[in-house]
Amino acid sequence: MHSWVDGQPADAVPLKDRGLAYGDGLFETIAVKAGQPVLLDRHLQRLEVGCRRLAIVADHVLIRSELLTFAAALGDGVLKLILTRGDSLRGYGISAGAPARRILQGSAPATYPHAHGSSGIRLFPCATRLSEQPLLAGLKHLNRLEQVIARAEWQDADHAEGLMLDISGRVIEGVFSNLFLVDNDRLLTPDLSRCGVAGVMRAELLARAEALGIATSVIDISVEQLQQADEVFVCNSVYGIWPVLGCGAMSWSAGPLTRKLQGIVRALLDI
Amino acid sequence: MHSWVDGQPADAVPLKDRGLAYGDGLFETIAVKAGQPVLLDRHLQRLEVGCRRLAIVADHVLIRSELLTFAAALGDGVLKLILTRGDSLRGYGISAGAPARRILQGSAPATYPHAHGSSGIRLFPCATRLSEQPLLAGLKHLNRLEQVIARAEWQDADHAEGLMLDISGRVIEGVFSNLFLVDNDRLLTPDLSRCGVAGVMRAELLARAEALGIATSVIDISVEQLQQADEVFVCNSVYGIWPVLGCGAMSWSAGPLTRKLQGIVRALLDI
Repeated sequence: MHSWVDGQPADAVPLKDRGLAYGDGLFETIAVKAGQPVLLDRHLQRLEVGCRRLAIVADHVLIRSELLTFAAALGDGVLKLILTRGDSLRGYGISAGAPARRILQGSAPATYPHAHGSSGIRLFPCATRLSEQPLLAGLKHLNRLEQVIARAEWQDADHAEGLMLDISGRVIEGVFSNLFLVDNDRLLTPDLSRCGVAGVMRAELLARAEALGIATSVIDISVEQLQQADEVFVCNSVYGIWPVLGCGAMSWSAGPLTRKLQGIVRALLDI
Repeated sequence: MHSWVDGQPADAVPLKDRGLAYGDGLFETIAVKAGQPVLLDRHLQRLEVGCRRLAIVADHVLIRSELLTFAAALGDGVLKLILTRGDSLRGYGISAGAPARRILQGSAPATYPHAHGSSGIRLFPCATRLSEQPLLAGLKHLNRLEQVIARAEWQDADHAEGLMLDISGRVIEGVFSNLFLVDNDRLLTPDLSRCGVAGVMRAELLARAEALGIATSVIDISVEQLQQADEVFVCNSVYGIWPVLGCGAMSWSAGPLTRKLQGIVRALLDI
């Protein structure tokens, strides 16, 4: 699969890149269907929020146009954009106005088992907790060691995803997914103002649910609330929605609201 | 200045490198004097601790030998080693036994003003707090966005370093330094079991102080304790020790224990 750096075919970045040195940058993983990046506006919106919060200067019109050109050539697959703060001087200091580096990588469509969506999955209860950092919470930044060590906690194929709590024990998200609960016909998802990645599919589902007149709530969620939920599912912008059947000793069944939202996502992702 | 990747001259890494994708790796910044890496054993010891904690598989005998060869060619300067988990498959998952990537970069000696050591410095009181993550605390890993945003809080030359507290308000470290207090002839430095980087110079100073019969203590330190300290200094393995004269409304003067330890460090770093 091909890749670009700053609009040119390339497969490497300079050693001085701040993404490598400090994880100083952001990324987006975008599903591409028939040459079109799915939920592009939401991806770009989150990227812009990240750039503002981290004071990364980027040409967002150019990024959009490159993503569209790259996706058209990719056809069907997954497009990963990494935006770093460019090259480093010595140390953590930022040189004002240094241009961001745009890295695009294409890959084949995701190959998750179809049964994950149709039958549902089990979550591994990760011991790795998410630290609380309001200044970075919600962003899809390049500091992802917590996800790496959490994902290494299980190897068996019985668990398709892991459940992550924060340091204080709140339910937050999956390792590479956001989490939703259905509780008395209300759609709940954890507040991500202290930690977690505010996923593009999460935002889309919240908007779609509201448009359908479904009550939604973004709140702190305890393990007890999770346990008592009527339905639980995880989502991301590549695989869509997977109903969650269990996590450790907890169990749920795939319910009507999960199935309804899956129908919407299926149309979006063409899966 | 030259650079190596896996023992060969190179100035770029593949886009698939996990250091770039997730900050999935470790680094060491090593002073080199007359072709010798200073405090090499301590740097390698910390690197090995990091590899064990993150399950990064590396050939530490080879790393030592490459560092020695590279340093001999560098002469005087700063050697940066980045060790990443190598190339990524899709997602956070680790392929067992994948070889780490060794990146060496040489640069000229640090050019901090001499007065930082002789007269002392002021610390900028950073608003950015360190999040608490015991699984990563102490390691010099590549997830350094907190340091990047903290360092961006001040631009003026009146502050040579910044003071960072953790989310709970404990005094932890500088942005690129460790912090010591002298309190009634005891040498105190913050406990780094929740956050912070366990610096090589910090470890050396603790060992040297103990050898000199100076009482040392690694403990939680409050802002009040910092304020009441007799002496305060920051240190790292490149610049040595800088006495701290002030931080916000707090002030101290460079005292005898700071000066004594500076003498030891000066001999080490030849500054």
